[in-house]
Amino acid sequence: MMALEYEDDIVIVDCGVQFPDDGMFGVDLIIPDISYLMDRIDKVRAILITHGHEDHIGALPFILPQLKVPVYAPRLAHGLITAKLKERRAARYSVVNPIDPGVIHHIGDAFEVSWFRVCHSIPDAMGIAIGTPLGTVIHTGDFKIDHTPVDGRIFDLPSLSHYGDDGVLLLCSDSTYAEVPGYTTSERVVGEALDRAIGEAEGRVMVATFASLVSRVQQVVDAAVKYDRKVSIVGRSMVDTVKVSTDLGYLTLPPGVLVPLAETRKLPPEKVVLMTTGSQGEPTSALVRIAKQEHRDVNIVAGDTVIISATPIPGNELPVSRTIDNLLRQGAKVLYDRIATVHVHGHASQEELKLVLRLVRPRYFVPVHGEFRHLTAHAQLAWDLDVAKDGIFVLEDGDVLELSESGGKMGERVSAGPIYVDGLTTRDTQSPVLSQRRTLSQDGVVVVVATKDKKQGVLLGQPTAVTSGFLDDSETGTLLDDLCAAVAKELNASDISHEGIDDLKAKVRETARSFIAGAARRSPMIIPVVLEV
Amino acid sequence: MMALEYEDDIVIVDCGVQFPDDGMFGVDLIIPDISYLMDRIDKVRAILITHGHEDHIGALPFILPQLKVPVYAPRLAHGLITAKLKERRAARYSVVNPIDPGVIHHIGDAFEVSWFRVCHSIPDAMGIAIGTPLGTVIHTGDFKIDHTPVDGRIFDLPSLSHYGDDGVLLLCSDSTYAEVPGYTTSERVVGEALDRAIGEAEGRVMVATFASLVSRVQQVVDAAVKYDRKVSIVGRSMVDTVKVSTDLGYLTLPPGVLVPLAETRKLPPEKVVLMTTGSQGEPTSALVRIAKQEHRDVNIVAGDTVIISATPIPGNELPVSRTIDNLLRQGAKVLYDRIATVHVHGHASQEELKLVLRLVRPRYFVPVHGEFRHLTAHAQLAWDLDVAKDGIFVLEDGDVLELSESGGKMGERVSAGPIYVDGLTTRDTQSPVLSQRRTLSQDGVVVVVATKDKKQGVLLGQPTAVTSGFLDDSETGTLLDDLCAAVAKELNASDISHEGIDDLKAKVRETARSFIAGAARRSPMIIPVVLEV
Repeated sequence: MMALEYEDDIVIVDCGVQFPDDGMFGVDLIIPDISYLMDRIDKVRAILITHGHEDHIGALPFILPQLKVPVYAPRLAHGLITAKLKERRAARYSVVNPIDPGVIHHIGDAFEVSWFRVCHSIPDAMGIAIGTPLGTVIHTGDFKIDHTPVDGRIFDLPSLSHYGDDGVLLLCSDSTYAEVPGYTTSERVVGEALDRAIGEAEGRVMVATFASLVSRVQQVVDAAVKYDRKVSIVGRSMVDTVKVSTDLGYLTLPPGVLVPLAETRKLPPEKVVLMTTGSQGEPTSALVRIAKQEHRDVNIVAGDTVIISATPIPGNELPVSRTIDNLLRQGAKVLYDRIATVHVHGHASQEELKLVLRLVRPRYFVPVHGEFRHLTAHAQLAWDLDVAKDGIFVLEDGDVLELSESGGKMGERVSAGPIYVDGLTTRDTQSPVLSQRRTLSQDGVVVVVATKDKKQGVLLGQPTAVTSGFLDDSETGTLLDDLCAAVAKELNASDISHEGIDDLKAKVRETARSFIAGAARRSPMIIPVVLEV
Repeated sequence: MMALEYEDDIVIVDCGVQFPDDGMFGVDLIIPDISYLMDRIDKVRAILITHGHEDHIGALPFILPQLKVPVYAPRLAHGLITAKLKERRAARYSVVNPIDPGVIHHIGDAFEVSWFRVCHSIPDAMGIAIGTPLGTVIHTGDFKIDHTPVDGRIFDLPSLSHYGDDGVLLLCSDSTYAEVPGYTTSERVVGEALDRAIGEAEGRVMVATFASLVSRVQQVVDAAVKYDRKVSIVGRSMVDTVKVSTDLGYLTLPPGVLVPLAETRKLPPEKVVLMTTGSQGEPTSALVRIAKQEHRDVNIVAGDTVIISATPIPGNELPVSRTIDNLLRQGAKVLYDRIATVHVHGHASQEELKLVLRLVRPRYFVPVHGEFRHLTAHAQLAWDLDVAKDGIFVLEDGDVLELSESGGKMGERVSAGPIYVDGLTTRDTQSPVLSQRRTLSQDGVVVVVATKDKKQGVLLGQPTAVTSGFLDDSETGTLLDDLCAAVAKELNASDISHEGIDDLKAKVRETARSFIAGAARRSPMIIPVVLEV
């Protein structure tokens, strides 16, 4: 999420989620912290969407109930957002307006907004040109420059060039692949590889890709039609996207090519293509369950060809690799990015990034979208081209860039999250819950319960210890009895009649911690419970 | 670990550890299950080592106290093993014999063993030729074919060819990069890139690589000498390897080039090279602590050049990426594999693998070392070459291949682990401890303590609930009180005077589970504690 502020107007570009990595125990999603915007709620005019990927629209159901501002989105993104808000019961908070490229929208007093077409791994992706009193801001959204896209909707280079002619204040451009030399391969190459693979397959074909990669679905459907196969879509998120895309005309399905999964079982294997999710090794996805022989309806048989038409997103390499292994073990032929051109990515490489910088000729440049090293690499590219002579700024979440007639400078940072969504609650990164989970995950938990006789002011009976995730019962031996004896000894060693519950708990915790560290060389979470009876 | 068995003799090739991935909570290391060997302990003659990497020698301290057999290892591996056994107090269980290539060792009645030199990312790496009554078995160990290695010790292709001339029964060959077309780049290219980077650096240089990558250390030292810089080694494991390698002559350090870290602070930055561990983003490594500004002695200053001379091992991409980001944020120039040729890997690519297959001309082929998909890719290569006509077998841990005069076939599988090392204990994968930790890591733990009045046979007072890693205190509100009330209501609803502790615990657990699922939509680990007073 990026916000542009000019006097009394704020517009927001995109509103995405991030997915947690392995260290963020129990976190479902990560959303932006909008406290800066909530403090200026009267100025916020709209959220402008570039395209329908989760990392650009996924936080809307969480943010709109608070911000309650209109959303403007290209038509496919509009369809996906509408479905998402309905599902999350957040539709009533806001109006979502579909937009077409080239149409100017006046938003607030300050902004004249229009979208221009780019290419990306979802149809109907666009960049945004935001006219401001200080000059034009160009935000590319996510893009690559594909001269032969599957849907024929090419990158609108002439518009970009016109903006450049008229003078651009600031360019914000996609940095995801700024480390990669050369040009990103066209989707057409993948189409040819998929066509060949499906044409040569002797048995059933399964193709796994991103649910939102509608052009890939189109390529598979086209090849299936060519080789007289039926296609069945497996996996809810892909079924949903295919439906929205077909309804809106972004996917062309010849009548009869799509069949329900049940029907494919009546067909000979060489007449079947299954399209599934799970290209990232997601544990609950169709492909992963099929690979682990846990899918209710689909089993791998020798002769199946599985095409993983995706590249693992960093962090997903191991689950993807395991899924490939599981499929191979069951006799499938598996085609994946390392051994066949069954995927190209959706972001511009260095030569495309340079082209955009050369066409736009901005005064200021801010690389966006990517890790810090990608932003740095993109900034270096602009530096090497000697463009954006008034300033290149590498910004992180919460950074503020102030542009005025007199120049650009960094303003005071604002609070910008991240906010973790964890079941029904959201919390910030300072919460102790996550560090507690980390400790629990490493050495488990030991609960020590001691009871104090309220009248006598002494320990009543022997303490009790219960564990989970600590050691196997077979491994503990007399450890827990010894632990309880050690705690009892400690509590009996002095007069506890006047000690409060909290003091006694601290004593139990410290005794248990040091006993376990000595006896088992471990540091589990210790939960002392002291009762008074 | 691989075992060769012929009548009354067994020899073992290598004895490595595997490192846990994120799902293996609290696991330190993974070692082989040797129960098959323990059942035949009288037949086990020796462990033959190919080279000194952890995934080939790391399990020796755990295995030798049980197997108590002699070890044969190339000289650098011998030095590293000796140090490791001493540190782990396992030296007394076994004799470790240093070997030289080309010398024949008679082991048991069945085996004539000799080593031959290969190239890899540690000096003194070797393959093993094992003569058996049925024919020769060639195990390549880990290798690449580098015609210009840093230490000048080239791959012994002529010996391999001679074995082929004489006839080879079985080839076991490294499959790690069997998916990669072409040839692996020579170490010399990295030397040139490091020389240029160190020559051009204006300030201090830090180079991070694997502690065992002695040739890389040599290249950095050579460049440092050339550009009149001193080198300091930071990180215990690298200090240890450098010492062993220098003592054994595998690393040549001109007098005075190595200096203690403290001394580098008295030198101008352009006179300093620091060599560190941490190229894989390991949390406790020197580089990661430096990047996070948590290192006691070293801080990044603008003008520093950091060279990450390694490629992330699958699963380590995110921590490596974060380390790069942290270094860039502090103003360092960072060179890493994506943007500069500062690393080449140590395993053969497809053309090298084909060359070995063509020279050895085995009757049988077993691809080894790598994930299942790498083994499959290697098997496919051999298949495409039409070599190993008597059989290509893709084996996994526990698989048994039986070769006899009449042919090769799969035998009955044996128990082969993995065994998890977890602090002082080892356990198998069936242990409930790991799944408990997984549950704890997602939603934390809720402890519910209820006390039964032994005389009256009723609940005494109100139950108590304590949590960790569940929800923030600010989020729980009255949830815990309501939970305790629900448990109390359940226990008071019927006559519990005759119910045993276990029944009551089950009741508490189920009541708490269903209450929390309804009220908070979560599934924490629930630990019921029922006391009788």
